Amino acid sequence: MTALEEDTRVARSRAAILQATARLLAESGFAGFSMDDVAHRAGVGKATIYRHWRSRAQLLIDVCASLDDPVPVPDSGDLRTDLVELLSHLQRVLQSSTTGPVIAALVEGAERDAELRRLRQSAVHQRREAFHAVLRRAVERGDLRAGTDVALTTELLVAPLFFRRLVSRARMDRAFVTAVVDAVLRS
Amino acid sequence: MTALEEDTRVARSRAAILQATARLLAESGFAGFSMDDVAHRAGVGKATIYRHWRSRAQLLIDVCASLDDPVPVPDSGDLRTDLVELLSHLQRVLQSSTTGPVIAALVEGAERDAELRRLRQSAVHQRREAFHAVLRRAVERGDLRAGTDVALTTELLVAPLFFRRLVSRARMDRAFVTAVVDAVLRS
Repeated sequence: MTALEEDTRVARSRAAILQATARLLAESGFAGFSMDDVAHRAGVGKATIYRHWRSRAQLLIDVCASLDDPVPVPDSGDLRTDLVELLSHLQRVLQSSTTGPVIAALVEGAERDAELRRLRQSAVHQRREAFHAVLRRAVERGDLRAGTDVALTTELLVAPLFFRRLVSRARMDRAFVTAVVDAVLRS
Repeated sequence: MTALEEDTRVARSRAAILQATARLLAESGFAGFSMDDVAHRAGVGKATIYRHWRSRAQLLIDVCASLDDPVPVPDSGDLRTDLVELLSHLQRVLQSSTTGPVIAALVEGAERDAELRRLRQSAVHQRREAFHAVLRRAVERGDLRAGTDVALTTELLVAPLFFRRLVSRARMDRAFVTAVVDAVLRS
């Protein structure tokens, strides 16, 4: 086997493992899936999985990264437009039948897995940065008053979407997203 | 055994079952506990459990009800005071080492258990009513403008607390609660 063929084979089994994990997480959550299940579903040996991921926590974090389709930080010059774009993306991610259950599994797993809690911190941090950048630019333009608490404002914006997905399980649409943005911008 | 003795015995085993369930949920989540575990931990037979609860979902809902220490709906005449009181109570419930993990288990369980989702609706409804009552009274007093969306306002108030408990796992204190109330009231 050439080095290129070997690379292709590795990439293919890696993709199969990530896809199998995403499906298993949706079916059984973090507590309900094992490396054995993943190996069986992906059609690979368990050793192949452990070559890439030492724990279920690492595997789950990589599944999140592989599903995440990061949008470029919007910069339309209009704060409301930028925030509606960022929140609409989050709404789609939370409601998608692929990514929604993986995020729910992440929340569930972090409840009892300290490694997962640690790994998740950096993932949360990245997402948050896009909101902070948009809000900071609005402060520079004078669209938000100086001294605006960008961290708190970000929490106020994203929290209602997580609440609907995880707690009340109410549907979300664009009208809801714009209502949240408008309410937070008024404050 | 007299009827009174029988009642006492039933009440005692019921309390033991609820307490054992709360502990097991904190340790293992909804996916990780079984009626067998509960029976073993509470020192009762499985038949005793099934006499009161036909499913894990019903048992979990009753654990929530038994841990819930409902506050009377505050009515100080001042909207901000009332909302800070309601949210502070929610903050304590979410951060408590007894109730916090049970709420997390409820979120996790509802992901895959349709019965639990149904049963939870009425529990969520009750909590929500206290906020709606406080907000409606403020509209009547003229402290909030007529036509205020009390449902959306309630979501904006409670969501950041659930977000911190379930997603970012950041600590919450009274300063955070008042910051949320003030931001939402400004809008």
